[in-house]
Amino acid sequence: MRLTVDLNSDLGEAFGAYTIGRDSEIIPLVSSVNIATGFHAGDPNVMEKTVELAVKSKVAIGAHPGFPDLQGFGRRSMELQPGEIRTLILYQIGALDAFCRTAGSKVSYVKPHGALYNQAEKDLGVALEIVKAIFDYDPQMYILSAYGSQMSVAAKQIGLQTANEFFADRGYEPDGSLVERSKPNAIIHDSKIALKRVIRALNEGVVEAVNGQDIPMQVDSICVHGDSESALNFVREIRQGLSENDFTIKSFSTIK
Amino acid sequence: MRLTVDLNSDLGEAFGAYTIGRDSEIIPLVSSVNIATGFHAGDPNVMEKTVELAVKSKVAIGAHPGFPDLQGFGRRSMELQPGEIRTLILYQIGALDAFCRTAGSKVSYVKPHGALYNQAEKDLGVALEIVKAIFDYDPQMYILSAYGSQMSVAAKQIGLQTANEFFADRGYEPDGSLVERSKPNAIIHDSKIALKRVIRALNEGVVEAVNGQDIPMQVDSICVHGDSESALNFVREIRQGLSENDFTIKSFSTIK
Amino acid sequence: MRLTVDLNSDLGEAFGAYTIGRDSEIIPLVSSVNIATGFHAGDPNVMEKTVELAVKSKVAIGAHPGFPDLQGFGRRSMELQPGEIRTLILYQIGALDAFCRTAGSKVSYVKPHGALYNQAEKDLGVALEIVKAIFDYDPQMYILSAYGSQMSVAAKQIGLQTANEFFADRGYEPDGSLVERSKPNAIIHDSKIALKRVIRALNEGVVEAVNGQDIPMQVDSICVHGDSESALNFVREIRQGLSENDFTIKSFSTIK
Amino acid sequence: MRLTVDLNSDLGEAFGAYTIGRDSEIIPLVSSVNIATGFHAGDPNVMEKTVELAVKSKVAIGAHPGFPDLQGFGRRSMELQPGEIRTLILYQIGALDAFCRTAGSKVSYVKPHGALYNQAEKDLGVALEIVKAIFDYDPQMYILSAYGSQMSVAAKQIGLQTANEFFADRGYEPDGSLVERSKPNAIIHDSKIALKRVIRALNEGVVEAVNGQDIPMQVDSICVHGDSESALNFVREIRQGLSENDFTIKSFSTIK
Repeated sequence: MRLTVDLNSDLGEAFGAYTIGRDSEIIPLVSSVNIATGFHAGDPNVMEKTVELAVKSKVAIGAHPGFPDLQGFGRRSMELQPGEIRTLILYQIGALDAFCRTAGSKVSYVKPHGALYNQAEKDLGVALEIVKAIFDYDPQMYILSAYGSQMSVAAKQIGLQTANEFFADRGYEPDGSLVERSKPNAIIHDSKIALKRVIRALNEGVVEAVNGQDIPMQVDSICVHGDSESALNFVREIRQGLSENDFTIKSFSTIK
Repeated sequence: MRLTVDLNSDLGEAFGAYTIGRDSEIIPLVSSVNIATGFHAGDPNVMEKTVELAVKSKVAIGAHPGFPDLQGFGRRSMELQPGEIRTLILYQIGALDAFCRTAGSKVSYVKPHGALYNQAEKDLGVALEIVKAIFDYDPQMYILSAYGSQMSVAAKQIGLQTANEFFADRGYEPDGSLVERSKPNAIIHDSKIALKRVIRALNEGVVEAVNGQDIPMQVDSICVHGDSESALNFVREIRQGLSENDFTIKSFSTIK
Repeated sequence: MRLTVDLNSDLGEAFGAYTIGRDSEIIPLVSSVNIATGFHAGDPNVMEKTVELAVKSKVAIGAHPGFPDLQGFGRRSMELQPGEIRTLILYQIGALDAFCRTAGSKVSYVKPHGALYNQAEKDLGVALEIVKAIFDYDPQMYILSAYGSQMSVAAKQIGLQTANEFFADRGYEPDGSLVERSKPNAIIHDSKIALKRVIRALNEGVVEAVNGQDIPMQVDSICVHGDSESALNFVREIRQGLSENDFTIKSFSTIK
Repeated sequence: MRLTVDLNSDLGEAFGAYTIGRDSEIIPLVSSVNIATGFHAGDPNVMEKTVELAVKSKVAIGAHPGFPDLQGFGRRSMELQPGEIRTLILYQIGALDAFCRTAGSKVSYVKPHGALYNQAEKDLGVALEIVKAIFDYDPQMYILSAYGSQMSVAAKQIGLQTANEFFADRGYEPDGSLVERSKPNAIIHDSKIALKRVIRALNEGVVEAVNGQDIPMQVDSICVHGDSESALNFVREIRQGLSENDFTIKSFSTIK
């Protein structure tokens, strides 16, 4: 039985005069922060400040790169030319790493954002471009992605370390993909139910899909949100429940 | 008498479908390339390609960061908030360094671009923000700026290494600043005259200003351009002349 | 004695996933809405939606153009080349007018935003470039600016109609400029005091500056904010007070 | 037999310091100019200047709107949310129309650019969003698109006028689509062959596809390019040949 698990959250998504998320409240509750790198969200000022908060809370820092689409928040799919995903990944990792370096830390992993994540989850070519960029930058890094994702497959092909993330508040289809937000049972609002699913996935390696079927689910990290008071409470309850079930919250990048 | 000198050039200024400069021809003629970092010019694809050319030619790589103003090519002055220059410098250095790192090289120095260079040349506060960002990123780096610039003053205050650049094709005012492009004698078109001025600056530490007065001028690097056939010929003649005067072309970052 | 006055507010400042301001609540309280036009804030989706709200509430629509600086929210001064302010004004007016046209309305006036407003307030050259662009687009438009501003001077030179705006919640210097936000008495929090100043400016054409001196103040429009519940209450109290003093809230663009 | 035909060209694609195309040479050779509107190419300065050249040459002006993707020159497909294509079309038409209005002209038609054109050619939903936006802005406008395109289908559904464009220098597949640039016979370099195809399409309403089969082809406008001396010569020869075959070059927006 594993006794540690990571909690990750997408942060540093403010931009200029625009604020979003409650970063200073969520950071102390998690063990890994995925920081936006200025293409779909975030800006250099926000990045430096978010890195400082992460370093102060001694949590692992991951780059959260996305498509160059601020208006769409990186959620609109773009068809890039071969090689362009590699270069936008490298650019964004490097930019974030500059702030980590001056703060005495480093980028430990990469979790692609939004439409880029979704493309890479299903498309091995896109996934390979991403994992090779990460590996070329630093072969000690991890890629953080959904269990069974093509990113995970691609990472294994080239020898990049992987971490599987589980969405505590989302329903799963029988094929292991997330239930689309527009469909019933996409979101799990009850933290007690969510906690049970988390614990079962951790201890038994399965989760119940929307059709009632159990599907395999390996979990290194649990993705949580911090954009509202209720979201923060949800996280607090998951943390408390994990503790009561003898799990320690710890970054995967130091525990594997 | 010094027997080495650096030649630097501003490169990697293409963007998407837009090309500018003749990078592959100028790179083999210089010893240091200042690569645009995506805010005023350049994009991740261009950066990776330019770094590869630089590595192939074994020249030093410098970051050439500018204001976030692609339309103005970084030539329009912007009044940023305190701390914002620091973060845009760090972001851009880090982004470029990612491509250097994967190509087996590193960013050796920083030369601010356009309006940012001009502000930092005269404003100690701006200059300090820049040199501190560079020093925090890597205390082994250099700042490349005009002799007598506030960037040089600021760098000395904090212990960052400096290199002085001389503009082979520009006239100088008695105070050591460049003659504005709109004024007479701003540009020196005759490479023979330019070469004489370069050699005299290198050997005697002086250059003749537009009013005929000799002014002090220390030179570690000569800035040249590669955006036309005539510009390339100008560089070839400067190189040839330096060689005939027993100077070796070599990056300042390895010779000091 | 004048019996009508305009209330204006800066709106449509959301961008993509980023929301800012409580537009749907403030629009019914004012008579003129200054809509951001996509350079410093706003995007095409936000513009269309804000225009629709304005049309539904039958308020006048003004373009609120700014510098191309989303990160700085248009508050960072930029030194553009001659002619560039003209073209950015025209571009932004036209873009907004497209949404007005399809909604059966039109752009009635222009109020420059942020750093562009501040530059134009003091620099006749910048002001002339702005007012000429507006006049060339539609000579029936107004420019909305501070009383005594160079925009007002420039508009009179070329025959563009002007409207003077008064800031209900701000202190004034003896020269008629706003007290900087960093200084004491910059902000007037008490709506009763603010209302008295508004009424006196409307009825007597004077306002008391921070040093106690009365200065001349002509008012066609009162600028109010809607970014918080307290701001909305402030507006409601100003409206109520104006009504009790026999003023009707009406756009200047239909009453002059 | 029809005796007039339009020549159109994509222009105004420069951006800031980046120049592209030989606009001042091609404009006098065509009858309709499709002007980039700042999202994928062009900027407000370029737009004003290009409109002035078009007005001077008395050619029709069309908006050439694209995806918000300057780095990709609008050639990278993006999946926007419902309604977002409508608003980006309106924004860009309005922005261009501002420059037309101050120059005493107007936007007469719209030709979507790049990936947006390609999507709208095949996807009726995207096409409908585009043509409705154009119709709502001005029901007298035309949409310029490929013969048989879904844009043409959508325009007929809502009553927007259409013009069919034929690519003089491109091969066609049997289904009427262009041969992809990576395939053989995609480009026709011989202006004599191109001219024969143009004349046959105009006179007989057919063109020979790459497989030798004749396919129907209605032509209101011929798309030509002006980015090189050879491209300009190609246009001159097409013009000359059309004249020798008794065709007058005239914008479709005045001749239908």
